Amino acid sequence: MQINCELTSRVLESFIRDELSKAGFSRVVVGLSGGIDSAVACVLAARALRPENVRAVMMPYKTSSKESLTDAKAVVAEFGVVSETVEISPIVDGYFGTQPEASTLRQGNAMARARMIVLFDQSMAHRALVLGTSNKTELLLGYGTLYGDMASAINPIGDLYKTDIFQLAAYLRIPDAILKKKPTADLWAGQSDEAELGFTYAEVDELLYELIDQRQLPERLIEKGFKTDFVHKVIHKIQSSQFKRRGPVICKVSPRTVTHDFHYLRDWGL
Amino acid sequence: MQINCELTSRVLESFIRDELSKAGFSRVVVGLSGGIDSAVACVLAARALRPENVRAVMMPYKTSSKESLTDAKAVVAEFGVVSETVEISPIVDGYFGTQPEASTLRQGNAMARARMIVLFDQSMAHRALVLGTSNKTELLLGYGTLYGDMASAINPIGDLYKTDIFQLAAYLRIPDAILKKKPTADLWAGQSDEAELGFTYAEVDELLYELIDQRQLPERLIEKGFKTDFVHKVIHKIQSSQFKRRGPVICKVSPRTVTHDFHYLRDWGL
Repeated sequence: MQINCELTSRVLESFIRDELSKAGFSRVVVGLSGGIDSAVACVLAARALRPENVRAVMMPYKTSSKESLTDAKAVVAEFGVVSETVEISPIVDGYFGTQPEASTLRQGNAMARARMIVLFDQSMAHRALVLGTSNKTELLLGYGTLYGDMASAINPIGDLYKTDIFQLAAYLRIPDAILKKKPTADLWAGQSDEAELGFTYAEVDELLYELIDQRQLPERLIEKGFKTDFVHKVIHKIQSSQFKRRGPVICKVSPRTVTHDFHYLRDWGL
Repeated sequence: MQINCELTSRVLESFIRDELSKAGFSRVVVGLSGGIDSAVACVLAARALRPENVRAVMMPYKTSSKESLTDAKAVVAEFGVVSETVEISPIVDGYFGTQPEASTLRQGNAMARARMIVLFDQSMAHRALVLGTSNKTELLLGYGTLYGDMASAINPIGDLYKTDIFQLAAYLRIPDAILKKKPTADLWAGQSDEAELGFTYAEVDELLYELIDQRQLPERLIEKGFKTDFVHKVIHKIQSSQFKRRGPVICKVSPRTVTHDFHYLRDWGL
């Protein structure tokens, strides 16, 4: 699973410029978490638009690791993008004060959605589109928060597996501290994506590539050596997270329905 | 524009039951604003699932009109659904404390998104799907907040124009106070949808029906008597709000891409 970094980066930078100009914008806003995905998205935008047109927003919660903020600031310093820090603790705690029994998962979802509120508000304040930072592995596994970190206007990295992101990050000279640390959603101390998922990104990306991009049948992949349980677990994750990859399901009762058969503006003079 | 209320209500109730059971749920949570759309969605769910399986959440902001809360409570009392009140002021003010210059529009969007956070959190807390309350008129005009009130799991009323909603509300015996008041997003005192939009729902629904459902050409509708400016204004609203009706735009760089050509689970054994 090798990507051509030079070509990929060129395509993604054009995409950012084209989508912005189609929408009549010239700037983006991006949430910078200190992780590798948002760093790559941010740097691609800085290259596509020049750093002064990229606003990186760091949005720590009171329990976020200090290292995340330090790593995010290293990207800002290295690439010269505009930056801002907005604490999300008052937003999140403004709600969970009344929900003392809420699980870590519920709190994590609310944190991701509080960050969405800040980004989309900054989008309007600065006339800048929100840049997405979800990668293909997360999107397929549903490993993200619907209407939270999965929300954006344009997403340059949504068709890159996590393993592709690592390659591109090295090519883009993302700071070493970010390249080398274990991927984490940073919802609690010591959290690791791979420990939580129960497999490594390298393993799952290979399987996803065969299943999705190569359209290989599960039985064939099991014959070829992928473990049966692993294949079924991953397929189950893809199936059960389908709702996160599409909009609300609308009940069709008329000749032409939003999300059913009113999708495109082709016949609308655009 | 007459709908068959008895049939429509029966179809929408089946939709609610079917979608819940497909997703393995038996309850819904719905934000009850005091307006007609959420009242209709709530009552359809109460009829489909029985009232004890419908959780209505009232989410006033400190500037919301008291009348909105009273009207929402009348629906709860009349139809016997489970109810809860969660103030969103601490969530919203937790952010805007740092953004004193924010416009009413920015604040309104953040209110709608704060309500989304509460509903999706309650969805997880109570194993209940979030019921959407956006109607077809709003969806087509983009008169709603992306990732706010437009966010839901299933939306029974998204294919009904506002004028259809009024008919259905009367059939469902929604309280008179709600049937008779002017539609409003209740973001500031005296706000009215129709004043803000610059046309009435009756006028725009007739035009939308011709344009969207009947696929009539704008020029023909102008010939038939619709005012030129009005037709162009409405078409512009539909075009410029297209981004609210679809997910983030992902840059395609692989054989099979989420939202481009990986849409369906048809070939996934479902």
